Amino acid sequence: MSGSYVLQPDPEDSRLSTSVTGIDQNGQPVETRVVTEKPLTLYLNSQEVVTMMTIGDHPDLLAVGYLKNQNMLAEDDVITGIDHDDDLDVVVVRTERETNFEEKLKKKVRTSGCAQGTVFGDVMDGFDTVQLDEDARLNTSWLYALTKTINTTPSLYLEAGAIHGCVLCQEDRALVYMEDVGRHNAVDKIAGWMVLNDIPAHDKIFYTTGRLTSEMVIKTVMMGIPILVSRSGFTAWGVELARKAGLTLIGRARGKRFVALSGHDRIVFDMSASDVEDEPDTARRKGSVPAE
Amino acid sequence: MSGSYVLQPDPEDSRLSTSVTGIDQNGQPVETRVVTEKPLTLYLNSQEVVTMMTIGDHPDLLAVGYLKNQNMLAEDDVITGIDHDDDLDVVVVRTERETNFEEKLKKKVRTSGCAQGTVFGDVMDGFDTVQLDEDARLNTSWLYALTKTINTTPSLYLEAGAIHGCVLCQEDRALVYMEDVGRHNAVDKIAGWMVLNDIPAHDKIFYTTGRLTSEMVIKTVMMGIPILVSRSGFTAWGVELARKAGLTLIGRARGKRFVALSGHDRIVFDMSASDVEDEPDTARRKGSVPAE
Repeated sequence: MSGSYVLQPDPEDSRLSTSVTGIDQNGQPVETRVVTEKPLTLYLNSQEVVTMMTIGDHPDLLAVGYLKNQNMLAEDDVITGIDHDDDLDVVVVRTERETNFEEKLKKKVRTSGCAQGTVFGDVMDGFDTVQLDEDARLNTSWLYALTKTINTTPSLYLEAGAIHGCVLCQEDRALVYMEDVGRHNAVDKIAGWMVLNDIPAHDKIFYTTGRLTSEMVIKTVMMGIPILVSRSGFTAWGVELARKAGLTLIGRARGKRFVALSGHDRIVFDMSASDVEDEPDTARRKGSVPAE
Repeated sequence: MSGSYVLQPDPEDSRLSTSVTGIDQNGQPVETRVVTEKPLTLYLNSQEVVTMMTIGDHPDLLAVGYLKNQNMLAEDDVITGIDHDDDLDVVVVRTERETNFEEKLKKKVRTSGCAQGTVFGDVMDGFDTVQLDEDARLNTSWLYALTKTINTTPSLYLEAGAIHGCVLCQEDRALVYMEDVGRHNAVDKIAGWMVLNDIPAHDKIFYTTGRLTSEMVIKTVMMGIPILVSRSGFTAWGVELARKAGLTLIGRARGKRFVALSGHDRIVFDMSASDVEDEPDTARRKGSVPAE
C-alpha cells in the first residue's frame, strides 16, 4: 500500500528511537522503544532564529519549512546553502539576500502562543490574500484509500508512539509521510520538501494526525493546499478560519467515518461509506494518543 | 465517581464549545460540538508577556500558573491583583515587587521550542536543585481508581474532543481536573490553582492525557510533584530527565496496563492488574485523539 511514497518513515533508523527498560503493571521488567527528542537550533544566515525540539531527521527540510511557514523566506529568495552540524545540533540556512528579522523575532515574543506554536504576528498578514484552488477535488474513494495506506505504513508511531504524523497526498497517493515529536515540525518538514523540490500545492491533500486548530489551518492555507484532513477533531477557531479561507476541512476521519465542516463543495462522493470496512478505534495506536 | 473534585470540567458551559454544522461521510448534514480556541494576552504588571491560545476558562489560574512555571513569580512575590478583561482577551497580574523580564523575554525568543512550548532558557536553571519527596507513594489501587474516575468524568473531551486534560490527584482522589486546547495551559491552570490556594505538591500525583515529553517532565518537577502519570507515551528525553530528577514516570496507563520508566520505587503493588477490568482503547475518545 505504501508503494507510492517518495519519502516515508524509517522506524528502523536507530537514531530516531531508543530502547529503555522499566516495569509493567505486574512489576515485571519490560523493554520498550521511546522516540528521540532533541533540540535543533536554527540560524538564518548569521541570525539565530529558534530552537526546536525535534526527532532529528531531515533537519534541512525542517529548517527550510520552518522559515517558509514563518514568512522568513520570500518566494524569490535563493538558498545558497544548508549546513547541519549533528554534534552541535545546529542547522544554518544561507540565502543570497541579506536577512534581518530582529524586529520579527521581537514581535514573536509577544505573539507566540507557544502552547500552540508560533503563527501569530505577521504570519497572519498573508492569510487573507491566499487563493486556494476552487477546482481541487477530494474523491471519497481517495480519502478511504489514503487513510488505509497511512494507517498501515510502518512508522515510528506504530513502533514507539508519542509522535505526530503528517502526509502530503495527491489524489489517492501518499507522497511524503513525515513524523516528529512536535507536530508543527512534521508540517514544516513537508513544507521544506515542497520548497526544495518546487512542488505545486494546488492539487495536494494534506493529512495530519493532529487536531485541526487555528494554527494547523493557517499553516495549510499559507502552504496553498486546498484540502486538510485529520483523524482528530476541530477547534471552533480552526473551523472559522477554514471557512474564511475556503479550505476544505475534514476531521474525525477514521475508517468509514468523517466530518467535513468547511469547503464541502470539493468533496466527490464516488464511494459509499457503506462499502468501506470500518476501522477499529484502536488502529494506529500503540504507546500514545497523538494530537495537539 | 467524581465526588472528590474541588474543580472539574463544565461541559455545559456554552462559552467553552460551539455547535457547528457540516456534512458526514454520507453527505448528510450533521451538527457537532467543537471546542473554543481564543487568544489570551498576559501582562505581568505593565509588561506584555505572551499571548496564549486557550479555551478561555480560568484566565486567572492560567495567568498565575504560566508565570509560576516560567519562573517569573518568585516564592516571596505577593500578588496584589489579577484583572481579566473578557472583551479585550487580556489578563493582568499585579505584584507588589516591580518586575522586568525584558532580558528573559529576549532569551525566550531564542530558546522557545514553540512546537513544544517554552520551557528552555532559565526555566531549566532550577531543575537540578529540585528535591522530590522520596517517601511519596503511588498504590496501584489508587492508579486504577483515578484512571476510572477521570475517564468517566463528564468533560469537554467526551463532549467535543480535540482538547487536553490534566488532573491533580492525591492518593485515590481526583482534586482538580483542567482542560484546554493547549495542554501546557491545562498544566499551568493547575499550577495557578496550587499557587493561589497554597497547595503542597509533595503528596500529589499529576495525571495528563498528553505525552510525556521533556517539557511535561520539567513542568511537573518544577511544580514539586513527585509522580507523573499519562495515558500517552514517552519521549527519550522525557524519560532521561525524569530519571535525573527522580520523578516517578508512568505512561501508557490504560485500563489495567501501564509502563513505569522512572522512579519505580514509589509504586506499591497493592492491587493486582488481573483484578482490573481492562479499558477498551476507545475509552475517553470522541472526536479526537489528544496528546502533544
